[in-house]
Amino acid sequence: MGEDMKGKDTNEEQEQVVNPWEVSAKDGGKIDYDKLIDKFGCQRLDHSLIDRVRRLTGRAPHVFLRRGVFFAHRDFNDILDAYERGEKFFLYTGRGPSSESLHLGHLIPFMFTRYLQEAFRVPLVIQLTDDEKCMWKNLSVEESKRLARENARDIIACGFDITRTFIFQDFEYVGGSFYNNMVKVEKCVTYNKVVGIFGFTGEDHIGKVSFPAVQGSICFILVLVQAVPSFPSSFPHLFSGKDDLRCLIPCAIDQDPYFRMTRDVAPRIGYHKPSLIESTFFPALQGETGKMSASDPNSAIYVTDSAKEIKNKINKHAFSGGQDSEEKHRKYGANLEVDIPIKYLSFFLEDDDELEHIKKEYAAGRMLTGEVKKRLAEVLTDLVERHRLARSAVTDEMVDAFMAVRPLPNMFD
Amino acid sequence: MGEDMKGKDTNEEQEQVVNPWEVSAKDGGKIDYDKLIDKFGCQRLDHSLIDRVRRLTGRAPHVFLRRGVFFAHRDFNDILDAYERGEKFFLYTGRGPSSESLHLGHLIPFMFTRYLQEAFRVPLVIQLTDDEKCMWKNLSVEESKRLARENARDIIACGFDITRTFIFQDFEYVGGSFYNNMVKVEKCVTYNKVVGIFGFTGEDHIGKVSFPAVQGSICFILVLVQAVPSFPSSFPHLFSGKDDLRCLIPCAIDQDPYFRMTRDVAPRIGYHKPSLIESTFFPALQGETGKMSASDPNSAIYVTDSAKEIKNKINKHAFSGGQDSEEKHRKYGANLEVDIPIKYLSFFLEDDDELEHIKKEYAAGRMLTGEVKKRLAEVLTDLVERHRLARSAVTDEMVDAFMAVRPLPNMFD
Repeated sequence: MGEDMKGKDTNEEQEQVVNPWEVSAKDGGKIDYDKLIDKFGCQRLDHSLIDRVRRLTGRAPHVFLRRGVFFAHRDFNDILDAYERGEKFFLYTGRGPSSESLHLGHLIPFMFTRYLQEAFRVPLVIQLTDDEKCMWKNLSVEESKRLARENARDIIACGFDITRTFIFQDFEYVGGSFYNNMVKVEKCVTYNKVVGIFGFTGEDHIGKVSFPAVQGSICFILVLVQAVPSFPSSFPHLFSGKDDLRCLIPCAIDQDPYFRMTRDVAPRIGYHKPSLIESTFFPALQGETGKMSASDPNSAIYVTDSAKEIKNKINKHAFSGGQDSEEKHRKYGANLEVDIPIKYLSFFLEDDDELEHIKKEYAAGRMLTGEVKKRLAEVLTDLVERHRLARSAVTDEMVDAFMAVRPLPNMFD
Repeated sequence: MGEDMKGKDTNEEQEQVVNPWEVSAKDGGKIDYDKLIDKFGCQRLDHSLIDRVRRLTGRAPHVFLRRGVFFAHRDFNDILDAYERGEKFFLYTGRGPSSESLHLGHLIPFMFTRYLQEAFRVPLVIQLTDDEKCMWKNLSVEESKRLARENARDIIACGFDITRTFIFQDFEYVGGSFYNNMVKVEKCVTYNKVVGIFGFTGEDHIGKVSFPAVQGSICFILVLVQAVPSFPSSFPHLFSGKDDLRCLIPCAIDQDPYFRMTRDVAPRIGYHKPSLIESTFFPALQGETGKMSASDPNSAIYVTDSAKEIKNKINKHAFSGGQDSEEKHRKYGANLEVDIPIKYLSFFLEDDDELEHIKKEYAAGRMLTGEVKKRLAEVLTDLVERHRLARSAVTDEMVDAFMAVRPLPNMFD
C-alpha cells in the first residue's frame, strides 16, 4: 500500500468512528480531530499555509479558513507551490442528492468552494452522485436523477461562476473517457486494498462489518465513480491534453478514505495525486457529537426554514453553554466549548470583531444565552433568505446550461 | 439465492473446473458435459426442442443444433413458447477482443447466432468487452478499443444483417441507460452472492482462490457490464418501451456463471430472465481436453492461416484415433471418440450424409487417417478462405455503420 494508507489504527475504532457512512464520537462526546488527523495520516492546515493563501490570492482568507472549519489537508502546499509557479489547477467537489432540503451543513463545502474558485480563478467540476443515492436509498433511477437536478439548483444558488463551472450527474455523464478511467482505476485496486483503506482489517468478516460490503461490495463501483473526477482526462471537453493539471478537493473529513485510494492510484496511471482540503463536521443543534441527522428535522436548520422556524429551532433546541439561571450565568459565564449558538456564529458571522466581542461578553456572563441566540437567528435568517432568493432565480435553463457538456473557454483566465 | 444458484457442488471442483476463466477436465481427460449440466443446474437441449425449432422456423436446424454442439440451455423453451404466441425476442452475444487472430472456436458462437438471427428474424446486440481485455491483459484503453474494432470486422464477416444488428464496445457505449441498469443490478447483488455464483464457498479465502478477486474483486464491474445487455432498456435506441422483450444468449457453457447472476436479478428489476443456449468447447488440435490455448498457435486453426498452414497443422498436430500402422488400422479401424479430424468435421462439414459415410468408413478401417485429414483440410481451407474474403470486404464505414447508435427500424419484420 502507498504512503496514504498509513495511520490506520483499528484499536481506536471502538472509540470514534469516522468514515463516509458513519460518524460517531467516543461515548457521545466530541469528535477528536487531532486523533483523526493522526489516524488518517493527513496534515493540519496551519497558519503559515493560511498566510500563504492570503498572499497568493491577495485577499482575506475565507472565514472557514481563518476559524479552522477547514482544518486539515493532503498536499495543499503542492497546489500552492504550483500556483505560485504560474500553474493553475481545478477544483472538484460534489454531493449525493437527497430528497430532503439542504441544511446549513450541506452548504459549507459549496460556500467554501465558491470562495476558492473566485480567489484562485480556476475551473470547478461538481459531481452529483445520483447513482449513490439510488443505490443506498430506496429511490428509482428516475427519482434520483430528478433530485440531482433539484440539488443542482441549490448549488447554483451558492453563486458559482457559470463560465468556470461544470455540474454533472453520474447517471447522465458516466461513459466515454470517464468510464475508461473507472476501468483504469479498477485495474490498480484489489479488494483487500479497498477494504483496508476503508478501515477494516483482513480478519473482519465481510458479512459482519457495517460497511457497504454488507449490501454488496459491488458498491465499489461508487468508489470508482467518485475517484475519477480527480483526473483531468475524465473531462475531455474541459481539460483535453492537460493530463498534468492538478486537482484540489474541498470536502468534509469523513470523505478522506475515498480519496486516499484515489491518491494511491493516481501516479500509477499517470496523474498527480489530488490534493484535499478538509473540514470539520457542522454540529447538530443539540450538540457537537457528530453530524446532523436527516431523520430529525429539529437537529438542523434547513434552507427552506422560515424566519419563525429558525428562531424556534434555535431557542428550543440549540444546546447552550450558559448557566441555568441568570444569576449563576452572570456569576460564572457561559462555557463556549459546548455552546452551539457560538459554534454556529463562528461558522456564519463574518465579522471577526463582533464574534470576538460576543464570545468575550458571553463567556464573562455579561451577555445572556437569549441574546446570543437572537443574534444567531438574525444571521441565519439572513443567510437562508439570501439563499432562498438566489435559488428562486435559478431557472431550468440555467440548470441545463451549468450541466451542459461544453468547453469553458476562459476557465483559466 | 434464486433457483439458478442450485447445483453447486464444491466436491466436484477438484475434478473438473469450468468457469469463465478456467476450463480443465479431470486428470487431463475430456470435459464431462453431463456432470456440468448437473452442476450448473441447466437443462439438456433435447430432440423435442430441436424439432420445435425446425417447425417454428420452417428450416433445417443448424448443424450445431443437429450435432449437439449447442447442447444445453436455460429456459430456451420459454423463448419458443413466446415466439409461437407471436412474440419476438432479441439475441445478445459478444466477445472479449484479443490481439490474436480469431481461431475457429471463436467463430462458433457467431456462426450460430447468425443462423438464429436469420431463422427467427430477430434483432441482435453484440458486445465487445474491450474493458475486460484492458483489465486482464496488459493493454492500454486505446489499444483495447482498437482491437475491439478489428474484432468487429471478423464478426461482421460472419454475415450479420446490418438492419437487425447493433455492435458496441463498452468503452464507447457504457453510460446513460446502460449505466443506470448497471447500478440497478448492483443494488441487487451482494458480494457473497457473486462469490457463491462463481463457485466458491464462504470459507474460501478471497486472497487464495484463483478468481478475479485476486486481482481485485472490483472486476465485479465487468460482471455488471456483461449482465445488463440482457435487459432491453439498456438499448433505448432499439427497444424503447419494450421492457417486456425476452433475450436469448448463445454462448459457450463456461459463460454460464455470468448469466446465472443476471437471471437471478432480472425479475427483481422488472425484466424476464434471459434464456441461454450453450455450447460445448471446441477442442484443441492436440485433443479434447478443454479449450484451445492462445499461447500455442499450433493448438488451433486461425482465420488468418494459409491453406498450407492449415494442411500442416492438421497433419502434424491433429490428434488421430486411427491405428499406428496401416495394417492395424485396416484391421481394427479408428477410435472416433478421440479423433480430432472427425470432431472438427462434425462441426464444419455440413453434409450429414458425407459425414456419416466418413465416420462409418473410418471406424471400419476402410478409410485412413490421412484421407480424413485431407478432407478436413479442404473443408477448413474453404471456410477460412470464405471468411478472409468476407473480412477483406468489410470497410471502415461498415464497421462505423454496425456500431452506430441508431434505431433498427425493421428489426422485427
